[in-house]
Amino acid sequence: MHNPFFRNFGPFKIKDLLNKLKIDNTLILNNDFISDIKDLVSAKENELTFFHSKKYEQQAKITKAGYCITLKNLAHYLPNTCKPIYVDNVLISIAELTSMFYPDAINDDFDITVKNINELNFTNEIRHGLNVLIGENVEIGKNCSIGHNTIIEKNVNIGSNCSIGSNVIIRNTIIKDNVSILDGCVIGKKGFGFFPNNLKNLRYPHIGIVLIGENSEIGCGSIIDRGSMSNTVIGKNTFLDNHIHVAHNNKIGDNCIIAGQVGFAGSSIIGNNVMIGGQAGVSGHLKIGNNVQIGGGSGVIKDIPDNTKVMGYPSKDLRKFIKDNK
Amino acid sequence: MHNPFFRNFGPFKIKDLLNKLKIDNTLILNNDFISDIKDLVSAKENELTFFHSKKYEQQAKITKAGYCITLKNLAHYLPNTCKPIYVDNVLISIAELTSMFYPDAINDDFDITVKNINELNFTNEIRHGLNVLIGENVEIGKNCSIGHNTIIEKNVNIGSNCSIGSNVIIRNTIIKDNVSILDGCVIGKKGFGFFPNNLKNLRYPHIGIVLIGENSEIGCGSIIDRGSMSNTVIGKNTFLDNHIHVAHNNKIGDNCIIAGQVGFAGSSIIGNNVMIGGQAGVSGHLKIGNNVQIGGGSGVIKDIPDNTKVMGYPSKDLRKFIKDNK
Amino acid sequence: MHNPFFRNFGPFKIKDLLNKLKIDNTLILNNDFISDIKDLVSAKENELTFFHSKKYEQQAKITKAGYCITLKNLAHYLPNTCKPIYVDNVLISIAELTSMFYPDAINDDFDITVKNINELNFTNEIRHGLNVLIGENVEIGKNCSIGHNTIIEKNVNIGSNCSIGSNVIIRNTIIKDNVSILDGCVIGKKGFGFFPNNLKNLRYPHIGIVLIGENSEIGCGSIIDRGSMSNTVIGKNTFLDNHIHVAHNNKIGDNCIIAGQVGFAGSSIIGNNVMIGGQAGVSGHLKIGNNVQIGGGSGVIKDIPDNTKVMGYPSKDLRKFIKDNK
Repeated sequence: MHNPFFRNFGPFKIKDLLNKLKIDNTLILNNDFISDIKDLVSAKENELTFFHSKKYEQQAKITKAGYCITLKNLAHYLPNTCKPIYVDNVLISIAELTSMFYPDAINDDFDITVKNINELNFTNEIRHGLNVLIGENVEIGKNCSIGHNTIIEKNVNIGSNCSIGSNVIIRNTIIKDNVSILDGCVIGKKGFGFFPNNLKNLRYPHIGIVLIGENSEIGCGSIIDRGSMSNTVIGKNTFLDNHIHVAHNNKIGDNCIIAGQVGFAGSSIIGNNVMIGGQAGVSGHLKIGNNVQIGGGSGVIKDIPDNTKVMGYPSKDLRKFIKDNK
Repeated sequence: MHNPFFRNFGPFKIKDLLNKLKIDNTLILNNDFISDIKDLVSAKENELTFFHSKKYEQQAKITKAGYCITLKNLAHYLPNTCKPIYVDNVLISIAELTSMFYPDAINDDFDITVKNINELNFTNEIRHGLNVLIGENVEIGKNCSIGHNTIIEKNVNIGSNCSIGSNVIIRNTIIKDNVSILDGCVIGKKGFGFFPNNLKNLRYPHIGIVLIGENSEIGCGSIIDRGSMSNTVIGKNTFLDNHIHVAHNNKIGDNCIIAGQVGFAGSSIIGNNVMIGGQAGVSGHLKIGNNVQIGGGSGVIKDIPDNTKVMGYPSKDLRKFIKDNK
Repeated sequence: MHNPFFRNFGPFKIKDLLNKLKIDNTLILNNDFISDIKDLVSAKENELTFFHSKKYEQQAKITKAGYCITLKNLAHYLPNTCKPIYVDNVLISIAELTSMFYPDAINDDFDITVKNINELNFTNEIRHGLNVLIGENVEIGKNCSIGHNTIIEKNVNIGSNCSIGSNVIIRNTIIKDNVSILDGCVIGKKGFGFFPNNLKNLRYPHIGIVLIGENSEIGCGSIIDRGSMSNTVIGKNTFLDNHIHVAHNNKIGDNCIIAGQVGFAGSSIIGNNVMIGGQAGVSGHLKIGNNVQIGGGSGVIKDIPDNTKVMGYPSKDLRKFIKDNK
């Protein structure tokens, strides 16, 4: 994953990382530096990865990472070039280390760096409303408009010919050309991800961003969370209606049409040309094919192949749904 | 439909309209002027209408319109007084022509005309919060209150004794007396209507408005879109709870009680004294009778007659729902 | 119920209360003063209570209240120390009297007392954004941050180490330490409670508050209404995702995890360690036990015992749901 916004505070010595995890590091004789944390596929020789489920066995076998946080019973899948580091809970450990590399990705307080747009100099002229606030590291293309009371927090890149409504909040987001973001949206906040703990849940860093493709539209009051270890993506020419909830890490394809109050639980991949009726819900970690149509109110809890129409809770083939409900 | 807010840029010569549609207009020998675009029922002699589905056969037979955008296989239903104009896609053509008559109804960027309420002179004294913005062509009755950061954009008419909350956005809307609009509502934005197109969807104009009857209440964070070719209507003494989504062209009756997170997909007609439980959804183009009760979570996908109680997804007679789920 | 925020305009003479209800008060020979209105359990000798359903028979038998608004066919349950006052509709009568004691709890217009935070002196230093408005009777603990355009209306008590996002509106709420309230929430407005009336519904007072326990998090765009005759409560270390609707009087326990777009209809009690999937709905007046798991999209319409997993609409045992949908 390309991660343009969050500053990487690494590299760190491998000994220091083990120390953070309270792991005995006296057996580590070298002074290797670890420059980043990435998933099994992206990680390189001087980087750290993690492997917590047999589900990712194939990716583990060919990882190029130098070190891997994992469980004892999974380590034998890793190639010899990748040194295992055993922990009790892979995800909690990786959260702790990620917060060393990317401390800015945990705290999601409001952006204190913003200034009124009238105090700033943008190359391009921007039609803007009253009380528009802009944070650090914000770029805005040609011929854009930004509504009243809207807050573009730090780390936002907006293309040309975009229309941002009023009362919108955006951070950690890349928006391509010709995109409309309607009133009251909140885009790029950290996702609903944490490790439950009986007295005080452990928040984990969200180092992903939100990426919205060209010609797309996001309806009023919709909320799109940024990714944790990957990005949240809305494709090109994809239209979302009002009150839509896109949780972290979802990747929605091109030319999709998604009606009001639909929710995506997180980490699902939605194909191109997908149409989803109002109030439908898509569970986490699913793969929805291309040209799929999901009826309004459906609850999707398993993968859907290409060119399929489904409806129901749980969703099933549309013809079966109609027959079953005659 | 009475259309009080959007300026009609017509009349246009019929030849110019055909030219816009890239239709050979050399066969049109006259210089007729077309003054407006309306539906089959409302259109008059010097106006244009459209007829795209056999479903509207009865209305087509008695239309008074002078011209009608239609398909070759439908034209024979039209009376002799109405000249057919053949196109490949009626709705796309009508969208193109509507955008000639009402160009202001396509662009839904924030209202750049607004001013702080303190800079304006209203006849009636208004209790208002800080940072209240008011656009052009806004009227506000006696004894109203308007909360902080609220934006009343252009083309809004508010009656007497109304309470508008904070962080509200309203445009293209008529609100009668004694209405409460709670915090964070967005009312009167264009609906989720467009013609899908694989590279860039075609937005169409929304020349309807939102009309909210007297004594009604709209809960926090609710969104009511204005109509496309007709109005979106909330009746008298009708109470909506929080997070409700009313899409374009819905007409909700009087004395209705609608609980939280309910969604209306668009163009449905809801009777009087209707009660709808939380999270229920009503599909598009339906007719829900008077005194209907819809249980929470229901998915309504067909018409419901008067005095009926339904529940379920899809919704069915309440007694059947209870029996089936014993 | 402890009621820290709304001023009690009592005591009132019993004769004046009867007069308000248009009840013949000539038979009342004494000049008793009534100091408050409370439920059957809390009310004391010089206080008034109400009893409208046989469901509360046990509480009625031991009430310590001096007077009780009730129906003729229920009065025999009351102890001799409690004088019955007969009315046709208990809830409407109690609403009328509550509005005498707590007139400030009916009107939910925006708070006109707020000032820009820069004009106020707080003991503790507050990191705050631009255009932050604070009402009367607001306390804020150490090390808090408050985002841009946020409005803390009157009667709010915020603990230490809290993070309040931008565009948030809060009133009549107590927030404990280490709580995060994300962008766009509306917390503490009156609930969706009123007595339907064919021409003009009768709003009733909401004298409860919202109480949010320590270490909890409320996701973006969530709405939590305050209670009517009791409080709305979110427990400790309970995390709510985005777009969640918590209606009046719900009491949610500790260590709960509630995913996006979930809705609670009102007056339900949710135990500790409860997990609820996205878009699920919980009907009113239910009791959900401890350690319950409710699948996404479920519609819960009856009580759920401890340590149970359910899913479906209506919800049923998870194993049954899976089996039925194979």
